Amino acid sequence: MKVRPLHDRIIIRRVEEEETTAGGIIIPDTAREKPQQGKVVAAGKGRLLENGILTPLAVKEGDLVLFNKYSGTDVKIEGEDLLIMHEDDVLGIIE
Amino acid sequence: MKVRPLHDRIIIRRVEEEETTAGGIIIPDTAREKPQQGKVVAAGKGRLLENGILTPLAVKEGDLVLFNKYSGTDVKIEGEDLLIMHEDDVLGIIE
Amino acid sequence: MKVRPLHDRIIIRRVEEEETTAGGIIIPDTAREKPQQGKVVAAGKGRLLENGILTPLAVKEGDLVLFNKYSGTDVKIEGEDLLIMHEDDVLGIIE
Amino acid sequence: MKVRPLHDRIIIRRVEEEETTAGGIIIPDTAREKPQQGKVVAAGKGRLLENGILTPLAVKEGDLVLFNKYSGTDVKIEGEDLLIMHEDDVLGIIE
Amino acid sequence: MKVRPLHDRIIIRRVEEEETTAGGIIIPDTAREKPQQGKVVAAGKGRLLENGILTPLAVKEGDLVLFNKYSGTDVKIEGEDLLIMHEDDVLGIIE
Amino acid sequence: MKVRPLHDRIIIRRVEEEETTAGGIIIPDTAREKPQQGKVVAAGKGRLLENGILTPLAVKEGDLVLFNKYSGTDVKIEGEDLLIMHEDDVLGIIE
Amino acid sequence: MKVRPLHDRIIIRRVEEEETTAGGIIIPDTAREKPQQGKVVAAGKGRLLENGILTPLAVKEGDLVLFNKYSGTDVKIEGEDLLIMHEDDVLGIIE
Repeated sequence: MKVRPLHDRIIIRRVEEEETTAGGIIIPDTAREKPQQGKVVAAGKGRLLENGILTPLAVKEGDLVLFNKYSGTDVKIEGEDLLIMHEDDVLGIIE
Repeated sequence: MKVRPLHDRIIIRRVEEEETTAGGIIIPDTAREKPQQGKVVAAGKGRLLENGILTPLAVKEGDLVLFNKYSGTDVKIEGEDLLIMHEDDVLGIIE
Repeated sequence: MKVRPLHDRIIIRRVEEEETTAGGIIIPDTAREKPQQGKVVAAGKGRLLENGILTPLAVKEGDLVLFNKYSGTDVKIEGEDLLIMHEDDVLGIIE
Repeated sequence: MKVRPLHDRIIIRRVEEEETTAGGIIIPDTAREKPQQGKVVAAGKGRLLENGILTPLAVKEGDLVLFNKYSGTDVKIEGEDLLIMHEDDVLGIIE
Repeated sequence: MKVRPLHDRIIIRRVEEEETTAGGIIIPDTAREKPQQGKVVAAGKGRLLENGILTPLAVKEGDLVLFNKYSGTDVKIEGEDLLIMHEDDVLGIIE
Repeated sequence: MKVRPLHDRIIIRRVEEEETTAGGIIIPDTAREKPQQGKVVAAGKGRLLENGILTPLAVKEGDLVLFNKYSGTDVKIEGEDLLIMHEDDVLGIIE
Repeated sequence: MKVRPLHDRIIIRRVEEEETTAGGIIIPDTAREKPQQGKVVAAGKGRLLENGILTPLAVKEGDLVLFNKYSGTDVKIEGEDLLIMHEDDVLGIIE
């Protein structure tokens, strides 16, 4: 079972700090409870431009991304807390 | 008897939690009274772009969708409480 | 004597609840005094797009429509209370 | 002596209720002091679109129009109180 | 010495009521101290549209114009109080 | 050493009143501490339009300009107080 | 390990005042704790225009830039405090 985000939306699973200290990216203290990074679990087909053309998103399933702390909508899918947001709320991709 | 939504609007029948626990999608506690998912019972012909072209909607009749809790307008059609909203208020399609 | 609405505006005659219970569409209790449906008595020639093209409206004279409760401007024409609104304020067409 | 309105603006002379009861259009009670209709005494050359094209206005000199009560700017020309507004503030043309 | 307004801006010298009663245009009482008309003493080259095209202004040096009372920026040039505003703030040209 | 402003931004060195009384342009009393004119010391390459075209700015290095009193951002470069603003904040060029 | 900013975003490492007094650029007193300049450590692929074209950014990795004091989002990457902002928040490039 799956949720397919519409257009330029993506679904994100928050990544807890414990997983990331090894990789080297640490969330600042003031943001401890609500980390600013997560893994993209689903991405929409693209952004619909005013001329009718659909441009594919820059993020894709599996990407580890940084995002603004108050971005997106919380949603529970199959018992798991996930986040749905617009790609524009993503600050960058962690490589 | 039917209501045909205009342009990029869709009509949604809210899906109660009891129906969804089997399927696996559970609405978070704080949203119990007003679930964030529903079935599309009618969809408009599409979004009218600034260049005059009509692009068809990504959701269609029968889709099970997630939407923002305060989205749309409540309306009663043939004794049933439904919701009319813009497709942009739909977060994703449950597959 | 007639009023021709400009561009994307339409003129609506509110339909009272008594007429609609037969047809099956019932207005919710909280909206009793100001029903959310009416008959289109006149429609403008269309929406003027930014590229200069006029696109015809999706609603036409005679359509029975649903609309947001606080939409439009009240106006009295030949002693009758009517409503002028933009087509965008129309939620859907009752068929 | 004349004032030529710029672009999409028009100049309107308010029509008092006494003139209109014969013709059949009556202004609602709450709007008695500031009627919502008037005669167009001058109209601009048209709306300048973002692509540089000028589209002519839909209202012309001599039209009797309905307009939103608080629209436009009051101006006194040759001792007469007139109103300058954008064509978009016109709700419809009385025919 | 001269100031050349940029793009769609114009420079206006306010015209006092004394000069205009002869010509017939009278400013309403409530606007006595800050008249709503003036002479254009300089006009910019035109409005820059989003497609990169410059469209010339509709007002030109020497025009007598009506404008909104609180429009523009006061500036003193060679000891004289003038007003710089966008052409859009001009309501009409007095002919 | 130099700062190159981005896109449609310009860098301005405020011109004090003493320098301008000779030339004839006097700043009104209420604006004495923060004069509304200055010399352009650097200009960006141009404004990026929505169609991807870069249009060159109308002001260039060396121009003496008028600008809105609260426009721009103060910055100190090589010990000197300068101002960085968008070209749109420039009212006109003093010739 | 690296973070790649999306679209028109850039990542900046703040430059402390001590490093810049030699080079001649001094941050004003009121901005001492939060300097307005920094080095670009990563830049997005470009700005996505409404016509679907991606235009490359004007700043690139290694540029020393001036930016508005309250611009961007603070983020800690590999233990280092960095800043992610839109290119539009960059005032100019220090050469």
